[in-house]
Amino acid sequence: MKEETISRRVAFQGAPGAFSEEAAVKLLGEQITLVARPTFESLFAAPAEGAADWIIAPIENSLAGSIQRCYDLLLESPFRISGEVLLRISHCLIGCTGASFESIRFVESHPVALSQCERFFSMHPQLRRTVSEDTAGSVAQVVKARDTSRAAIAGKRAAEIYGGTILLEHLEDYPENYTRFLLLTDSSDPIDGADKLSLVLKLPPQPAALHHALGPFARRGIDLLKIETRPLKGHPWQYHFCLDLQGSLKDAEVVDALDELKSYGLEVRLLGCYVSGNQLETRKRGKDLLRS
Amino acid sequence: MKEETISRRVAFQGAPGAFSEEAAVKLLGEQITLVARPTFESLFAAPAEGAADWIIAPIENSLAGSIQRCYDLLLESPFRISGEVLLRISHCLIGCTGASFESIRFVESHPVALSQCERFFSMHPQLRRTVSEDTAGSVAQVVKARDTSRAAIAGKRAAEIYGGTILLEHLEDYPENYTRFLLLTDSSDPIDGADKLSLVLKLPPQPAALHHALGPFARRGIDLLKIETRPLKGHPWQYHFCLDLQGSLKDAEVVDALDELKSYGLEVRLLGCYVSGNQLETRKRGKDLLRS
Repeated sequence: MKEETISRRVAFQGAPGAFSEEAAVKLLGEQITLVARPTFESLFAAPAEGAADWIIAPIENSLAGSIQRCYDLLLESPFRISGEVLLRISHCLIGCTGASFESIRFVESHPVALSQCERFFSMHPQLRRTVSEDTAGSVAQVVKARDTSRAAIAGKRAAEIYGGTILLEHLEDYPENYTRFLLLTDSSDPIDGADKLSLVLKLPPQPAALHHALGPFARRGIDLLKIETRPLKGHPWQYHFCLDLQGSLKDAEVVDALDELKSYGLEVRLLGCYVSGNQLETRKRGKDLLRS
Repeated sequence: MKEETISRRVAFQGAPGAFSEEAAVKLLGEQITLVARPTFESLFAAPAEGAADWIIAPIENSLAGSIQRCYDLLLESPFRISGEVLLRISHCLIGCTGASFESIRFVESHPVALSQCERFFSMHPQLRRTVSEDTAGSVAQVVKARDTSRAAIAGKRAAEIYGGTILLEHLEDYPENYTRFLLLTDSSDPIDGADKLSLVLKLPPQPAALHHALGPFARRGIDLLKIETRPLKGHPWQYHFCLDLQGSLKDAEVVDALDELKSYGLEVRLLGCYVSGNQLETRKRGKDLLRS
């Protein structure tokens, strides 16, 4: 029996071949329609402009930390988190046809990618670094220029898309380099197998406020996976608290904890309840999403 | 009686006229020697290179949030936090001599400064934005170019230093725009009147770990002013927790709370105990530091 799937338009930030695009394919498969958007602002604006149905957005890197602009845009967005995917970030040195490692003098990429390859650059002081807008876009330019003294740092996928030559692999200082991406959709339907919950709290500026707010989860042994604070605009040194918790809205304990938290009179908003990117079946879950 | 002060070399990030430079002068007065450093990395390397005695570093903006790179460099640094200063960030449009608002077509500045003036740009769609390395450096370039179609966005101090003409003031979207700077020194002497404490914790990846670690402070009514998480490099999805607390090491309650925390077997490191930037006497305190 042929599986029926709906072709969704999924917006990502960057040029075709970006790590974000790879994350969308890893989660949802190749049958989606990918929509490239140049900036995070235009990424989050894509559904309202009718340019995309869903959004895939990087939210955290295991070395660089939270992607603050995406947190702020997520907090302003009406969309819910419906999925998560982890992508191993491995940087390649990519040149045009005919280039070799010996011919390269200039290396261009996004500043975060360059900064994740410090050891490589200190071992090869003959290479000069140039900052560019994005990783995949740098590959496009290097290939187009046909200049064997130029190379870009980007993922393997960008080399495949633009016909670049991979000169070296695994340039990154730390192999444990992962980026966590969120799938944002307009659906608030409960997701089968969901095991992770994200919410945002506004706390009064009082001693013990955060300790008090974490109590309902701590007392029930519900694991706090991450806490992130973002400024409340117009209220200096006050914050939104974004919590990622282990659990599902189908667990009675989680529902009880949320009820207790709300009974304190705090502002609590659910950002989503979804299958965590650590789950082995991530890809299968992503395909389930397309069927819904 | 003439006051004896030691002339300290204080490193700041950016070009002369940068907001960081203004913060150093606000805290310590004009008698310090200011050392401009192009990047955050070179800023934190300045004392080890013998180029400066102390460091002034931006750690948080009330709109953009924590300055992640400075948190990471602070955590790697042997220096202690010895002071704090808050600076109101107010952006001016600055041109060369002979420029008027009507003559301007191009506006250049650091991307964060440009992004804090969105309303201004949407009201004046004839203005094209250009990204540059820093705010004060843009003023230097605009004044040098003597091109009346170009302007920079920066603070008043940059206009004074480079002889620029202030065409408009208060371009920022939110007037409540402050940056919090830390003074880092090699002194761990207790500071008179200290009322704020910063520390960093490493917590086990267990449910309730954060709730448990905040308990000693919460039970004593010691206010948690800010919590910031930074990734533990090489350990994806594990974090350093940086806490700012109201209190001093001279308060018995604070000492008891720290002892209780340490008794849990957690890794706790004191980043500093200092006078908070909200104190009216900040400037006087800064001068006291120079006398020590």
